[in-house]
Amino acid sequence: MIPKTIERVGSSIRLIAQTKLPLEMTYLEITDYKDIIGAIKRLDVRGAPAIGIAAAYGLALAVEHADSITPEYITKVADEIKAARPTAVNLVWAVDRVLKRLANENRVSKADIAALFWDEAEKIHEEDRRLCKNIGLNGAELIRDGDSILTHCNAGALATGGIGTALAVIYTCQEQGKKIKVYADETRPLLQGARLTSWELMQAGIDVTLLCDNAAATLMRQRSVDHVIVGADRIVANGDFANKIGTYPVAVMAREHGVPFYVAAPYSTFDQQIPSGRDIVIEMRAPEEVTEGFGKRTAPEGVNVFSPAFDVTPHELVTYYITDEGLTPGGRKK
Amino acid sequence: MIPKTIERVGSSIRLIAQTKLPLEMTYLEITDYKDIIGAIKRLDVRGAPAIGIAAAYGLALAVEHADSITPEYITKVADEIKAARPTAVNLVWAVDRVLKRLANENRVSKADIAALFWDEAEKIHEEDRRLCKNIGLNGAELIRDGDSILTHCNAGALATGGIGTALAVIYTCQEQGKKIKVYADETRPLLQGARLTSWELMQAGIDVTLLCDNAAATLMRQRSVDHVIVGADRIVANGDFANKIGTYPVAVMAREHGVPFYVAAPYSTFDQQIPSGRDIVIEMRAPEEVTEGFGKRTAPEGVNVFSPAFDVTPHELVTYYITDEGLTPGGRKK
Repeated sequence: MIPKTIERVGSSIRLIAQTKLPLEMTYLEITDYKDIIGAIKRLDVRGAPAIGIAAAYGLALAVEHADSITPEYITKVADEIKAARPTAVNLVWAVDRVLKRLANENRVSKADIAALFWDEAEKIHEEDRRLCKNIGLNGAELIRDGDSILTHCNAGALATGGIGTALAVIYTCQEQGKKIKVYADETRPLLQGARLTSWELMQAGIDVTLLCDNAAATLMRQRSVDHVIVGADRIVANGDFANKIGTYPVAVMAREHGVPFYVAAPYSTFDQQIPSGRDIVIEMRAPEEVTEGFGKRTAPEGVNVFSPAFDVTPHELVTYYITDEGLTPGGRKK
Repeated sequence: MIPKTIERVGSSIRLIAQTKLPLEMTYLEITDYKDIIGAIKRLDVRGAPAIGIAAAYGLALAVEHADSITPEYITKVADEIKAARPTAVNLVWAVDRVLKRLANENRVSKADIAALFWDEAEKIHEEDRRLCKNIGLNGAELIRDGDSILTHCNAGALATGGIGTALAVIYTCQEQGKKIKVYADETRPLLQGARLTSWELMQAGIDVTLLCDNAAATLMRQRSVDHVIVGADRIVANGDFANKIGTYPVAVMAREHGVPFYVAAPYSTFDQQIPSGRDIVIEMRAPEEVTEGFGKRTAPEGVNVFSPAFDVTPHELVTYYITDEGLTPGGRKK
């Protein structure tokens, strides 16, 4: 079974507690919007689309479970939710979308506003499910029965309200009866590949093999990989894209070995405001994620650390962009 | 100060307890040869040259501290030491070299044999120091004041009886008054870069920055790396070489970005018996090193793991081989 990251259950929200994965599969049953904020802050829910959906549901919970509401209360709650994580674009976008719906429709009673918020949150969730589904269908056209696919980080069900982006292609192939073998880069420093991707693929009964990021080149050299599929955090106007650190060297190795390289993302990940990858600002992460990421210090005290969260892959290394709308060729010549 | 991995102190041997690094710097003072075997097995001493030197000293300790000796005793001790680790070529080579010296010289008394063994062990150690020194001098010719060097794994003082192989170049530059900046790949799964390379460079007062293996490509792309220097476990007849997993993608990225790529190794690492890299057999490591390497499980139970210990870098990616004898051009065209 593909895990359901976030679900409405009556007037509560059920989230997979992702910080417990892969050791424990537990759900958080949430009725208080403050617990949605907590889950976002703690990374119990992560991935831009999933955060956006959780935020929209959070607004609905805040109205549904309030004794009474005022316009000031709604504004305060919206601001609190938007501040849960500093740089998540979808968080602000989803909250604003719910508020805009309220501004456009003249509702006054608590019950009416709650119904409106639930409806808009479900629309956002449903739209995300459809985007994931269409990405999966479009990408699956590229994959034959028996193929092997390498992926990096987690662009799966656990990051979205549906079946993921890069992993949507794999789930769709499975549904179509194609037998697929997946290789998952562990993805240092935070190990999303080890903790999340391998877990969710195993839950769905897909053949997955975990490897250290630096072993992917050997796999490609021995011709064990037919395709590489990754997600994206931001795809800019010229087709360059930012994704989890380590994506760029995978793309270079894929070209070196003639392995096609695909980026799977919905239309909302495309950012026409930024002309090229050179203009993308890259967040630097805390040294401790590298030096004591496993609960134990593994590097000398005081060592300098270089730890960018993302890297930029130029469009020349992309074979296809797999979007909800179809397949768009990238700039790779062979 | 460059750490002294192994030292004779009177009739005992002092080893850095490497399994305690980087959290604690402690020495093992060893008089019983069985403790040398224990240190090799536990990886308190590691790196092919350092293991060979420890093994030779172990034979000397076994004679020095025995009440009386017989030819059978010496054979038994030699076999025990050779069996300390299964695939360490230098271990067998060093023990056999000490035994051959005994066979060639007619010594009978315990004191005479002990003196002979100490002498041969010290010759092996001294030879290794000289090899390291010459590698350092030859490699330093390639490096200018102010350059930045990326390295992978630990080919340093901690792996040899001297100042290392790849890191010998860096220590020699420092001695020559060149200011060098070093980037150390952490080197998953066992983190030799984080635990050992960054530690020994900091001990020597060298500017070192640690990074996840998958961030090295970003460093090269932003032109922060002037040279890559790595060690080698085996260099075969056509110049292809095996080294710690992750070396091959670093070599590809170096060519991609026009960064010269050097392999530093003594003559003894060259193996003319094997024609090409395709013929090198690669050891696979235990899945637990990837899934629970640091005392905490970070991947689902039962996940498949692909974890080769080494990869093979083709000679076409090598700019120079830096050996104790000089610089030999590799097959890289630009």
